[in-house]
Amino acid sequence: MPSKFNILLISCLLTSFSSFATQHFAIAIHGGAGTISPSTVSADKIKLYEAKLKQATDAGYAILERGGSSLDAVNTAVNILENSELFNAGKGAVYTFDGMHELDASIMDGRTREAGAVASVKHIKNPINLARLVMTDSVHVMLSGSGAEEFALQKGMELVPNRYFDTISRYQSLQKAKEKIRKLESASSTASAFRANYVELDNEYKMGTVGAVALDKQGNLAAATSTGGMTAKRYGRIGDSPVIGAGTWADNESCAVSATGHGEFFIRYNVAADICAKVKYQKKSIEKASNEVIFGPMHKAGGTGGVIVIDNKGNIALTYNTVGMYRASRKQGEDAKVAIFAD
Amino acid sequence: MPSKFNILLISCLLTSFSSFATQHFAIAIHGGAGTISPSTVSADKIKLYEAKLKQATDAGYAILERGGSSLDAVNTAVNILENSELFNAGKGAVYTFDGMHELDASIMDGRTREAGAVASVKHIKNPINLARLVMTDSVHVMLSGSGAEEFALQKGMELVPNRYFDTISRYQSLQKAKEKIRKLESASSTASAFRANYVELDNEYKMGTVGAVALDKQGNLAAATSTGGMTAKRYGRIGDSPVIGAGTWADNESCAVSATGHGEFFIRYNVAADICAKVKYQKKSIEKASNEVIFGPMHKAGGTGGVIVIDNKGNIALTYNTVGMYRASRKQGEDAKVAIFAD
Repeated sequence: MPSKFNILLISCLLTSFSSFATQHFAIAIHGGAGTISPSTVSADKIKLYEAKLKQATDAGYAILERGGSSLDAVNTAVNILENSELFNAGKGAVYTFDGMHELDASIMDGRTREAGAVASVKHIKNPINLARLVMTDSVHVMLSGSGAEEFALQKGMELVPNRYFDTISRYQSLQKAKEKIRKLESASSTASAFRANYVELDNEYKMGTVGAVALDKQGNLAAATSTGGMTAKRYGRIGDSPVIGAGTWADNESCAVSATGHGEFFIRYNVAADICAKVKYQKKSIEKASNEVIFGPMHKAGGTGGVIVIDNKGNIALTYNTVGMYRASRKQGEDAKVAIFAD
Repeated sequence: MPSKFNILLISCLLTSFSSFATQHFAIAIHGGAGTISPSTVSADKIKLYEAKLKQATDAGYAILERGGSSLDAVNTAVNILENSELFNAGKGAVYTFDGMHELDASIMDGRTREAGAVASVKHIKNPINLARLVMTDSVHVMLSGSGAEEFALQKGMELVPNRYFDTISRYQSLQKAKEKIRKLESASSTASAFRANYVELDNEYKMGTVGAVALDKQGNLAAATSTGGMTAKRYGRIGDSPVIGAGTWADNESCAVSATGHGEFFIRYNVAADICAKVKYQKKSIEKASNEVIFGPMHKAGGTGGVIVIDNKGNIALTYNTVGMYRASRKQGEDAKVAIFAD
């Protein structure tokens, strides 16, 4: 018969093992969703996308592996995507109707529910870094426009000229989008007719975002999202990316989400927080919760896009109702999985 | 024994009665929460507040009574509060650090989940009207700054000079707030010290909002929120009022909410949508759901403020964790109930 001591020892070892076993770490990232298919993207470009997605995932993974925080992991992964021309965020940001670039970003710490966001900044190379500074160094959550840049300067951040974000391919997209919008406007006699016709505008002009979610060894979740917004956007439009609850959400009790898609719908359906509410209140898996939100009433209303989700056990869901989504993930002890088109 | 016809008739009448009985209409409004007590507000001023709250409630009620929409009811009620100097919204908006006024507002239609919001507008007399125009006449949900005003001009809305919002009492509040903030800054050697000290700043400077929620005879919910934001706000700060899910939410399937309080916390805890998520997913009453959110983890983290909530049966919850909240409500067939201090 086992002695009391042995029982204690076994029990203690089992507890330690179980506690160790649940401390999975993992990361997932996205580079936007849309009508991405082998017919719309060249084979060479696909390789570039895949390599950059892998690089960002591995960089975030390395931070988690050496015991770093999920906040550092998502921040670093997003920086790599922001610094690439391939994605609509940072360097690759699309143009506004007036030929400028206005960037949005947000970040959230699942441990404390602290959050930071910036909207419509024009001279910030890595908007996610400024969003993080808002979270850690300001008494606010959301700063916008030149005021956000004043804060950046006070914190010693260097500004870049708006033309830093100029790229030929995005400029060409702007011209095409403006031409289509003008045609829609002249074909629409009323505001509601324009709204109805606007649905026809290619979804590519309405989307494009980068984001990351991660779980670290300490069991903390984090999420980050960064974007150049909608091509040819006007009127100081703010999409879902800097809206906590819509484009970004992280709560250790449930999950972390970064979204990409037609932002107006993602705001109206509170997408990121709603997925985690289903996990928290209905005890649904992130797979089921994200399917219900991404393919539910929002989709029926016309909302397209996707999300990356991670829960506090390291499960990952990559869910989208578009043709494809630039995405990658890496779980503890595994290699990075990179994908662009449908499974 | 009753004939089959009689049974049919009784059953039919009961159904009609029950269907009629559930078509309650109702409205609730708020004019901000805070350290409001008989010792901080004079008896004369209390009468002014009560009269204005009653006027706004009755105006919204009258629209509902004659079969108008909940959207019209909340819009009209908020307009009356915006046009009064008493509340921090519209005419009575507080000052920014730089001595300007920057207003935020949002509105949501529970029937369609359509929403409109404006952030940091400086020349819009009734920001809630512009938020509604964004909802009905634009392809966007959230517009900001001068871009939002360009949209307003294109829609034929007249702008007012920023000094329209000037009031002596708010100017005096700004001077006091700036003095306190400067003292906090010089007493804080680091950003995190300032953040810690900032908690000490009177909550009055962080709050002040107006809002309305309503259920109409058609069973449709709506919510609207309008504010001048935080006294002495800087850096293009955006609070919870224009953030759909945080300060405003409406969904026929659950409830409609307008919030007032320390906006940063209301964003981080997704307050308005979270209350409705608890109603929708956990089948909780709005009373229980709003108590859990307003007195739950957010409050423990330091978040203060309140909400007005209405569900699709016309139940109303007026919940706040502050000393008082300017509030009023009126249910079908009843008189308006107006209150300021704790029950």
